[in-house]
Amino acid sequence: MSTETAPIQPLDLDPHETPDPAEPSPPADDVQQSAAAPGEEKDKKTPAVRALVLTGHGGYDKIKLQLRTPEEGGVPARDQVLVRVKACGLNFAELMGRQGLYDALAAPPVTMGMECAGVVEAVGEDVAERKAGDRVMVLSSSGLWQELVLVPADQTFIMPDAMSFQEGAALPVNYLTAHMMLFQMANLRPGKSVLVHMAAGGVGIAATQLCQTVSGVTVFGTASASKHKVILQGGLSHAIDYRTKDYVEEIRTISPKGLDIVLDPLGGSDTQKGFGLLKPMGTIVVFGAANSVTGQKKNLLAMAKTWYNQLSISTLKLMQANKSVCGFHLGYLKDFTLIRQTMDTLLGLYVQGKIKPRIDSTFHFEEVTDAMRRMHERQNIGKVILLPEPKKGEEKEQEKEEEKEQEQEKEEEPAEASAIPQEEEEAKPEEVKEEQG
Amino acid sequence: MSTETAPIQPLDLDPHETPDPAEPSPPADDVQQSAAAPGEEKDKKTPAVRALVLTGHGGYDKIKLQLRTPEEGGVPARDQVLVRVKACGLNFAELMGRQGLYDALAAPPVTMGMECAGVVEAVGEDVAERKAGDRVMVLSSSGLWQELVLVPADQTFIMPDAMSFQEGAALPVNYLTAHMMLFQMANLRPGKSVLVHMAAGGVGIAATQLCQTVSGVTVFGTASASKHKVILQGGLSHAIDYRTKDYVEEIRTISPKGLDIVLDPLGGSDTQKGFGLLKPMGTIVVFGAANSVTGQKKNLLAMAKTWYNQLSISTLKLMQANKSVCGFHLGYLKDFTLIRQTMDTLLGLYVQGKIKPRIDSTFHFEEVTDAMRRMHERQNIGKVILLPEPKKGEEKEQEKEEEKEQEQEKEEEPAEASAIPQEEEEAKPEEVKEEQG
Repeated sequence: MSTETAPIQPLDLDPHETPDPAEPSPPADDVQQSAAAPGEEKDKKTPAVRALVLTGHGGYDKIKLQLRTPEEGGVPARDQVLVRVKACGLNFAELMGRQGLYDALAAPPVTMGMECAGVVEAVGEDVAERKAGDRVMVLSSSGLWQELVLVPADQTFIMPDAMSFQEGAALPVNYLTAHMMLFQMANLRPGKSVLVHMAAGGVGIAATQLCQTVSGVTVFGTASASKHKVILQGGLSHAIDYRTKDYVEEIRTISPKGLDIVLDPLGGSDTQKGFGLLKPMGTIVVFGAANSVTGQKKNLLAMAKTWYNQLSISTLKLMQANKSVCGFHLGYLKDFTLIRQTMDTLLGLYVQGKIKPRIDSTFHFEEVTDAMRRMHERQNIGKVILLPEPKKGEEKEQEKEEEKEQEQEKEEEPAEASAIPQEEEEAKPEEVKEEQG
Repeated sequence: MSTETAPIQPLDLDPHETPDPAEPSPPADDVQQSAAAPGEEKDKKTPAVRALVLTGHGGYDKIKLQLRTPEEGGVPARDQVLVRVKACGLNFAELMGRQGLYDALAAPPVTMGMECAGVVEAVGEDVAERKAGDRVMVLSSSGLWQELVLVPADQTFIMPDAMSFQEGAALPVNYLTAHMMLFQMANLRPGKSVLVHMAAGGVGIAATQLCQTVSGVTVFGTASASKHKVILQGGLSHAIDYRTKDYVEEIRTISPKGLDIVLDPLGGSDTQKGFGLLKPMGTIVVFGAANSVTGQKKNLLAMAKTWYNQLSISTLKLMQANKSVCGFHLGYLKDFTLIRQTMDTLLGLYVQGKIKPRIDSTFHFEEVTDAMRRMHERQNIGKVILLPEPKKGEEKEQEKEEEKEQEQEKEEEPAEASAIPQEEEEAKPEEVKEEQG
């Protein structure tokens, strides 16, 4: 059992840098041993942990898989727990963070990762409600994409027995975001109409499921045509192919009076379109600026266009329209009491079978580039999951690495083809076993 | 029974001008006979109705009490009802409208008045749910400050037996506004904190009462010190004298984390302060720009200052703050289904004794200047009511006027001292009698 790990920023504190050297490093699918801090003697008895570290802003190659010499000896502080991570969620904010577009993420070098699921290995002396062996979900502003994490106990949530680690890693960010937007900001009620952009994404699927917990809600969703069958089966009322059709026209044809709620992860001119689609007393919740992310690296033109078109509205105009404009981003929310209450509600819905995260695909840490590309190119339907455990057949190589760091240059085939489809992963016996425990 | 009246604009149509000549006219406390339209023969058999007409934008003298030759012979169209008005509500929007600051009001000359209560005298052939004798409240975008009004039946609401006409005239605009803001935009829930500016005003008192229908809500209110006793008795948790204290500091002292909801009728820099006071997930609803109204006439400096400071916020800033900004103004709301649903809720609360409009004072039409001044100078605690019936002792004079229009220049003492205190008015026997009917 590892005794050291990298520091995790509690969600209620400003993020700070992880103490990791910023030296240039090879692509993410090459595992590196992170350099020891100056003057620090390397302790060969403390197993290093695998971690995905953002080494600078830019393309996929800026995220490196590193072997870290962990801090704090893996011993939890009074209010902390040590969690062995089994699965991590990938979020759009991390794509933006890699490009330097997400200011809630600390400057590189920084270990990424806002959510994960795993097993508690040790607890601090003041922690009464967690014990070794507890299966938990974890939420943080960053730092969770590694094998072992030290986090405040109140940022962990006990998982229901029926929930897999992959589901646990897929639930927190997407479902908290969708629930808070729909029920705390937009006040979803029976009979209302909702537009969900990127309806096949993690938040899109969560929002679609949550809308079905209220009677008579009509859900419009945008997604490319190839995904329509799946998302309609998931409960969407109307799927619109935004690539070939003007979604404003399509919605006006079906619902001439407009919409009650628009959930907008796009920003820019789409926010203006969404605002225009609202009925009086309608609400738009902006929760992202995906339009500013185009290519692999920061695109100044796309950013300028998104920023220029970003809705900036006077309260006088809002009064004349009787409309509401809200902004939401879980990464900036520091009220953990509210997050806990909402999570309790969500876990209740999960146990009742009313919500269930849809896992799109899983990738090992070595394959983070493929995972990010899949999300960036909008190929996913549901959540993209990252697994800390080494790819099969690579474990031995990793052991070798730890002994022979010099050899790490000439490693492994490209990870591209090695994503594990959900079905295979779900059936993995050791995972099923742990779920019973 | 009168058979003609001026046209009323339905709330769901753009307001249009009343067909009234714009000729210069004496102050409002001099009753004028409005000139007949060109080529129109005056019908002496149709009793004229008393109406308060805005003749131009400016000071108090721009509102004239006129005797109108009504249109349509007082015969309701298929979907209309004819209502004899017993009491009218005065709203801040009318002070702004007089100054030319309320663009939902048609250009002068226009009969003012957004709400009233009275008795149905006749119904159109398609109207099944109203009959002569029904006691009703009426809501419109303008045109209700006159003795007889023709309105679409679905803009009338049956009054509970226990409700006086003055209460019926005081309820619609203030309580619909407060309820929609608190429960449909801001999603008020148990334990939340709310700031109500102008807490002694009509909306302020309505909001305070409605907050008490939810358990554990803390209500902060601003008002001058002389009103604190009354509004604290009305259920306010904390009264703050905005004239001698910095309300932001006061609230921060009591509630360091800030507020969940701010209801803002002021605009300008107060909107920015209110936004700053919000907790994460908090909501500010802007529903007026009272700061732009200073003197009796339009004040370009005050307007410029209010407009310049008016909150204009980008969705990116909203996301980082996790906050909501809403605009509300009943005068721009065209969804009468929603208004009816909310009114049903309000009438239920009235019957249960959970809400009750507070009448500040009543003024006869002749005294409209005093009524407006009272509201403008923030002297009122609760609703200012206008009564169409002539002041006692003036009825005979009015009859004389109708016969001898030339004499109208040299009339009556100033209306200033003649406001009827609420207590006397409430006890008027003929009003009590009608309430039983």
